[in-house]
Amino acid sequence: MSRISYVNGDYCEHKESFVHVEDRGYQFADGVYEVFGIINKKIVDYDGHLKRLFKSLNEIRLNSPIHKSAYYFHIKNLILRNKIKNGLIYLQITRGVAERDFKFPKNSKPSLVIIAKSLPDDQYEENFLKGISVKTTKDLRWKRVDIKTINLLAPVLAKQYAVDNNCQEAWLVDDDGFITEGSSSTAWILKKNILYTTPLSNSILNGITRKSLINGLKRNKLKFIEKKFNIIDIKEADEAFITSATQFVMPVIKVDNIKIGSGKVGKCAHIFKKAYMEAIKLK
Amino acid sequence: MSRISYVNGDYCEHKESFVHVEDRGYQFADGVYEVFGIINKKIVDYDGHLKRLFKSLNEIRLNSPIHKSAYYFHIKNLILRNKIKNGLIYLQITRGVAERDFKFPKNSKPSLVIIAKSLPDDQYEENFLKGISVKTTKDLRWKRVDIKTINLLAPVLAKQYAVDNNCQEAWLVDDDGFITEGSSSTAWILKKNILYTTPLSNSILNGITRKSLINGLKRNKLKFIEKKFNIIDIKEADEAFITSATQFVMPVIKVDNIKIGSGKVGKCAHIFKKAYMEAIKLK
Repeated sequence: MSRISYVNGDYCEHKESFVHVEDRGYQFADGVYEVFGIINKKIVDYDGHLKRLFKSLNEIRLNSPIHKSAYYFHIKNLILRNKIKNGLIYLQITRGVAERDFKFPKNSKPSLVIIAKSLPDDQYEENFLKGISVKTTKDLRWKRVDIKTINLLAPVLAKQYAVDNNCQEAWLVDDDGFITEGSSSTAWILKKNILYTTPLSNSILNGITRKSLINGLKRNKLKFIEKKFNIIDIKEADEAFITSATQFVMPVIKVDNIKIGSGKVGKCAHIFKKAYMEAIKLK
Repeated sequence: MSRISYVNGDYCEHKESFVHVEDRGYQFADGVYEVFGIINKKIVDYDGHLKRLFKSLNEIRLNSPIHKSAYYFHIKNLILRNKIKNGLIYLQITRGVAERDFKFPKNSKPSLVIIAKSLPDDQYEENFLKGISVKTTKDLRWKRVDIKTINLLAPVLAKQYAVDNNCQEAWLVDDDGFITEGSSSTAWILKKNILYTTPLSNSILNGITRKSLINGLKRNKLKFIEKKFNIIDIKEADEAFITSATQFVMPVIKVDNIKIGSGKVGKCAHIFKKAYMEAIKLK
């Protein structure tokens, strides 16, 4: 079966999916994106992701190239055409093609690319049972990471640094020593039965998975607090997690050389995972 | 005459110059670039730009897709094929095409795109005689702007903010109130016959034009100092300038609502321009 992607109005063979070299996404990272998780052919928290996409567009003053209602149609179409059961949809919008100049072009049409990807059915559960290791590193990103833009070289370099250190994720540390978030996930620690995560600001992304987990925690009357934490807190933590659109709730068993709790996936991980899975909306 | 660009080994019609949607330059801004000025069919400070290109590649751990000596051949070829007399060469290298994942792909081949552009012969001189207006705005960029990467959304937004305020360039202000540099240029002020520019660090780009101007200043025994300056210094300035690969030495006649000197291009502007033009190497 051939893989199909959506590129500026056309459904194309993925291998034949191209954009112009002067697309502003390629020259200036002048664009935004979303990743939608797919569970059993349905989109996880579609409304939350779409709302954030439009917030990102608004923040960088970019118009949607298609009507708001059309995104659902194209995403569903790609799930169907690519026979995705579990996987993800990657969607990006850029300021389109224009003669290279830093200022906004006057008449460019925004570009829209949507890509579907299958993931093995049991991959998440397998990874969950193993847990992941995290490496901390300096947060070098720009000052508006609350906007989900494709300016991602800093998190790319952070993630690679983690991989070089046999870890699966990097936790980014601000100038005051606090963890902001993961290179592509939200960071959480459990300390004395309270789940901590960094409060929203320009320094972290307003995670859709983060929000659904918080909804699940509230429903189940599980204690959590939006409060910054640092390496001292991590040393005192009983469990730790990351959340993201494709990793859902994923246990962290090690941060740098610090074993979290027993160094194995803790018992609360299962509780939080269940709370999250019950809180998401599938569409 | 058709416009020709170089894309991954091929000379293509510019309109037909494409890259894959999963080129990491498009999804992650995982790449670096250079802009070479062209004067009278010759490349300005070729060796300096090429050296910086390789420094940028090294900083983000990217290999050159072609031999170092081949860049000159392709650039000269594009100048010839596009009949460029005065203009610029834009060159970018990204980490190539790979299934989307933050960490470095194992086997991707870096992508190389080179684009040539003509500029009107008299454009620079005309702009020089008018001078430009500058708007200050917060420096929101990441912490490694000494690497010339395509993570350019922050400077794009800054430049557009300047344009919205009827200015041609934005000067970026750090948390301590000092000007780091322009959104796509180096910033300079002349105060009591001393030319000031920000010292090199991770917070500014090591400008090739900046370096050539400094060489020209030294040759002519013109006083300059690498020292941070702020809005108070700007108010006391007699003249001001930007330098960049395509704008060379360009006078600044206004910053925010502050007229610089008489609010017209000052007499030292001509001296610095001459010193720069004598210091550059054409190849």
